[in-house]
Amino acid sequence: MYQNQIVIDGLQYCHWTRDYFITLQKSGITAVHVTLVYHEDARQTLSLFGQWNRLFEQNNDVIMPVFEVKDIERAKASGRVGILFGAQNCSPIDNDIDLVEVMRKQGLLIMQLTYNNQSLLASGCYEEVDSGVTRFGKQVIREMNRVGMIIDMSHSAERSTLETIELSTRPICISHANPTFAHNALRNKSNDVLKALSESGGLLGFSLYPFHLPYGSQCQLNDFCQMVTKTADLIGVNHLAIGSDLCLNQPQSVLQWMRNGHWSKAMDYGEGSAAAPGWPAALSWFDGTDGMKNIYQGLLEHGFTHQETAQIIGGNWFDFLELNLNSQSKW
Amino acid sequence: MYQNQIVIDGLQYCHWTRDYFITLQKSGITAVHVTLVYHEDARQTLSLFGQWNRLFEQNNDVIMPVFEVKDIERAKASGRVGILFGAQNCSPIDNDIDLVEVMRKQGLLIMQLTYNNQSLLASGCYEEVDSGVTRFGKQVIREMNRVGMIIDMSHSAERSTLETIELSTRPICISHANPTFAHNALRNKSNDVLKALSESGGLLGFSLYPFHLPYGSQCQLNDFCQMVTKTADLIGVNHLAIGSDLCLNQPQSVLQWMRNGHWSKAMDYGEGSAAAPGWPAALSWFDGTDGMKNIYQGLLEHGFTHQETAQIIGGNWFDFLELNLNSQSKW
Repeated sequence: MYQNQIVIDGLQYCHWTRDYFITLQKSGITAVHVTLVYHEDARQTLSLFGQWNRLFEQNNDVIMPVFEVKDIERAKASGRVGILFGAQNCSPIDNDIDLVEVMRKQGLLIMQLTYNNQSLLASGCYEEVDSGVTRFGKQVIREMNRVGMIIDMSHSAERSTLETIELSTRPICISHANPTFAHNALRNKSNDVLKALSESGGLLGFSLYPFHLPYGSQCQLNDFCQMVTKTADLIGVNHLAIGSDLCLNQPQSVLQWMRNGHWSKAMDYGEGSAAAPGWPAALSWFDGTDGMKNIYQGLLEHGFTHQETAQIIGGNWFDFLELNLNSQSKW
Repeated sequence: MYQNQIVIDGLQYCHWTRDYFITLQKSGITAVHVTLVYHEDARQTLSLFGQWNRLFEQNNDVIMPVFEVKDIERAKASGRVGILFGAQNCSPIDNDIDLVEVMRKQGLLIMQLTYNNQSLLASGCYEEVDSGVTRFGKQVIREMNRVGMIIDMSHSAERSTLETIELSTRPICISHANPTFAHNALRNKSNDVLKALSESGGLLGFSLYPFHLPYGSQCQLNDFCQMVTKTADLIGVNHLAIGSDLCLNQPQSVLQWMRNGHWSKAMDYGEGSAAAPGWPAALSWFDGTDGMKNIYQGLLEHGFTHQETAQIIGGNWFDFLELNLNSQSKW
């Protein structure tokens, strides 16, 4: 039964309103990894935490914050949606190694080392040259391992990702991306990356963002499930999850912020183009209400067992978080 | 027995080194309220938390952070010194009401509304005009009450202090100051303030800073205990504690930072003067090793019962923190 499962969406950046929280609650989602930051620095990140504290205060009957895995169980038990925070970039730590622990304490559980571009830590998937993990990056990986902040390489380049998997003493995640074999895109991941990821105990969250999918906005549930099946054959079911990358009800300005931040004077179109600068058309079978349920049904129909399907729609995220959010800090 | 007591020093700003932590441990102090910030803004406050996280990591056999009252019990049980953080000014929240909760989550348990000067919240005790609590101040008091961040009015002016006691739905503290009747100084507190403080369940921490004491650096233990006795007669033993304001091993530059921050172009001498710009000479009977023990003995000799003495050297702080650190946040 879908209703009994722990359902976790490993990435969303929707317009966060009470109406949408209620939609999430009705959808049966137990917890969602919310992008707090794309390009915001440490100070701005504090204000974003502050804004979310207001949302928690105003909507505590529908949502609750997740600081540890037990909070996901509490969310399930109370019929609320757990919110766990991540950053799509390393901007929240400025250039300060000490801010890894500070941000982790504040509730930043997951952080990408790069967002498309070169960062202070590693190379993004849109750079021409992928120079791997930087000196600062090596220190930050060690510190993230220590304090239990999960490394996410969704938007990172190949060499940087492989090096990070090697350097990190804890498994990492690619919270929202698809295999290149299913759709060739800069944001998707090679078989080499997928194998290294899974062999180190890492997790791949399949993306539902049309730019990452075969046939784009025309991708059908059947196409999606075939991709999952083929990936399971390659790296096993234990490493598969969902990270929908769902961005509902956001204006064009948000897309421009994601793509341009403060770094680009000329308009950068990211995965779009000057001819198609806007949000891609949404998938008909994946929205805020029925998306995860449709995937659950689809996977069962594609021959995954109940147990395997439960793992993919949330169980694997739950186990991964349980293993990797704990601090190894000595005090 | 002094050794069995919960001993809490309600304010110190020493030079924090491993040697000094060991001194604190040997002194029998269970927990100390450490000043994290004098004038630092939100971003700088994060780095100060970061620096302390390093100290905790490097000295976890001697000190530990206090986030809740149970941590003080844990410190006592493990023979370590608990460190609880406060700010002497409201600078850590910038001009942003949301940062009250953010800073509280990070571990800022106590915050003064003003430090000598007018702040965005209220008037400091050195201002010519005391205009009381500001519009922003009223909102911050309500928010501090809600999230369990303790209000400290040690460096605030009379009207601002009385209004805050009235506005706050939870008792406040004056963590480090003395009664004006014992020594007339801008930083000390009138009988009116002491009475309003105690009637609302608040706490006064007696200061050992020579500028706040009768006879300055020549103040003897006997003089100090007489002041405590007289204050107990005025407002009762339940509202009395210690907040030594001890600033050991700090260079002149720190004193100048405390007094001038970024606000003064001309040198401001605070409680000192151009003729005596430096740190006042320390009290011979109050230092990092034996200070609290000497007070414990002195109070017993001045006729306080064992129970009352235990309250003054730590029990009252413990009870006050237990009552006022809990969040009234709904989630």
